[in-house]
Amino acid sequence: MSLLLIAPDRDMSDWEQALQKSDPNLDIEIWPDVEDPKRVQFAVCWNHPKNVLNQYPNLQAVSSLGAGVDHLLADEELPESTDICRVVSPSLVQQMKEYVLAAVLNIQRNIVHYIHQNEQGRWQPHNHQLSGEVKVGIMGLGELGRPVAQQLANIGYHVSGWSRSTKDVENITTYAGTEEFETFLHNTQMLVCLLPLTQETEGVLNLETFKALNNPAWIINVGRGEHLIDEDLIYALDSDILQGAWLDVFSEEPLPDKHAFWNRPNIIITPHIASITQPSGSADQIVENYKRALSGMELNYKVDRNKGY
Amino acid sequence: MSLLLIAPDRDMSDWEQALQKSDPNLDIEIWPDVEDPKRVQFAVCWNHPKNVLNQYPNLQAVSSLGAGVDHLLADEELPESTDICRVVSPSLVQQMKEYVLAAVLNIQRNIVHYIHQNEQGRWQPHNHQLSGEVKVGIMGLGELGRPVAQQLANIGYHVSGWSRSTKDVENITTYAGTEEFETFLHNTQMLVCLLPLTQETEGVLNLETFKALNNPAWIINVGRGEHLIDEDLIYALDSDILQGAWLDVFSEEPLPDKHAFWNRPNIIITPHIASITQPSGSADQIVENYKRALSGMELNYKVDRNKGY
Repeated sequence: MSLLLIAPDRDMSDWEQALQKSDPNLDIEIWPDVEDPKRVQFAVCWNHPKNVLNQYPNLQAVSSLGAGVDHLLADEELPESTDICRVVSPSLVQQMKEYVLAAVLNIQRNIVHYIHQNEQGRWQPHNHQLSGEVKVGIMGLGELGRPVAQQLANIGYHVSGWSRSTKDVENITTYAGTEEFETFLHNTQMLVCLLPLTQETEGVLNLETFKALNNPAWIINVGRGEHLIDEDLIYALDSDILQGAWLDVFSEEPLPDKHAFWNRPNIIITPHIASITQPSGSADQIVENYKRALSGMELNYKVDRNKGY
Repeated sequence: MSLLLIAPDRDMSDWEQALQKSDPNLDIEIWPDVEDPKRVQFAVCWNHPKNVLNQYPNLQAVSSLGAGVDHLLADEELPESTDICRVVSPSLVQQMKEYVLAAVLNIQRNIVHYIHQNEQGRWQPHNHQLSGEVKVGIMGLGELGRPVAQQLANIGYHVSGWSRSTKDVENITTYAGTEEFETFLHNTQMLVCLLPLTQETEGVLNLETFKALNNPAWIINVGRGEHLIDEDLIYALDSDILQGAWLDVFSEEPLPDKHAFWNRPNIIITPHIASITQPSGSADQIVENYKRALSGMELNYKVDRNKGY
């Protein structure tokens, strides 16, 4: 019996240690080093490749390493009978608040410019706006969007929010629905996408949206790669409709080597790290579900395949 | 009669506009373009070069463009009879809070690594600590240090502070005096210097201090360049005693072209922009003092040369 970690682009040694600490008798394997596929009964996945989850005939259950499970639900190679669960971690909200704040501060205070100037040995101050003059707009006011918006307002930014249905958030001007979308965009210089991915929100970061912003604006995408039309972003940057883009999520991850987004000073790419499930504090959860799967008990944080969450 | 702006490394067009807006009849000159030295009666300085302030026989008063006036007090070419004043701006504290927060977030979340990876077209996630696990230590708990420390604690960092005499700051462990300095350093992974520059604090960022930190640590210097022993920093980085340094101030500014700090991925250099006096909101203050100087009235925010502030 073994627990298999499948996370091709991540160093999983911290996870291995934390799991082993939670239960020293655990047999942990890290993909692709699998001794005997028949022994694998539980898999923990992060950006798992295709044609992998069908290799283990005795797989009982699969856990996402994060809160999102759409990649597991979409995997047609995963038998209907295999249970799916997620990791629930209170630190995910905290990390997202930090990440968006870091992006907004870096843009406002020209930090990326200065880092590039370091490489050129160049001393050149740039003027910056005061935080109260910077208009940040948050799309999506749910579990993540709301605390992100509130923290930015507390720091001193001029924050507004947009969601499908009307929501009240303290110290923030909120807009709702299609009819108020354009007014929201007009009042936004830095647009943060924290929407869920649905048929309605797919491709919402498009040229029409960019043109309606308080230009030249920035976009910060921490939703899903599919929210963004890649070609529209390149066009908007090249036409000075947008000043820059700060991106953590992409339609294809890892972002392909030859993608047009690489090595452009006005596109900042981080490899889907805005909010990462941390080994400490989550290892016990995974070990518990591993033992539940082996014994046939109901899993914690189990996903309802019909509902999709 | 003219008002002369002396700020060799800054684009002063915003200042010129703001001053002209405050009084359209003002005769403004930007150094080194001075038509007739005899007409200059008031100078506004930021990192002014040597051998300049003695060129204007009718100079009545000099204003610092910021809160600091030590560069003007130290200038032996400035006659004793010339009045010195400063600009007082409430936004200086807000900007310093933003800047230190940006530095701490960037270090914690590996943002500089990711920016360098962008240039290499490299997708490589790095683990990061949660904010509650990061120990930030603030040296100096005065007008700037105290609000900076409080904001970091509010965001979620583990913050402690050190000052010469005992001070209480909410949610922060404070240490005081020489006898508690080492304990403070042991508990610090990111050391922020916001001390005033005095004989006692000069060179406080030295190898002994670095070794006492919770290594491998980072230093963030937003005090004065003279707080740091440059050679000790290079040695500490090369010996893995320190992980990196985030610097906004330097013994010589602009930082000389061939200085050892340039183009090292673990030294982040910003050109003294942590807290900048902004044209909007300060232009009126300067115009008022210019008119006071011309008419012989007492200046606002005048510096007492004996006290030194």
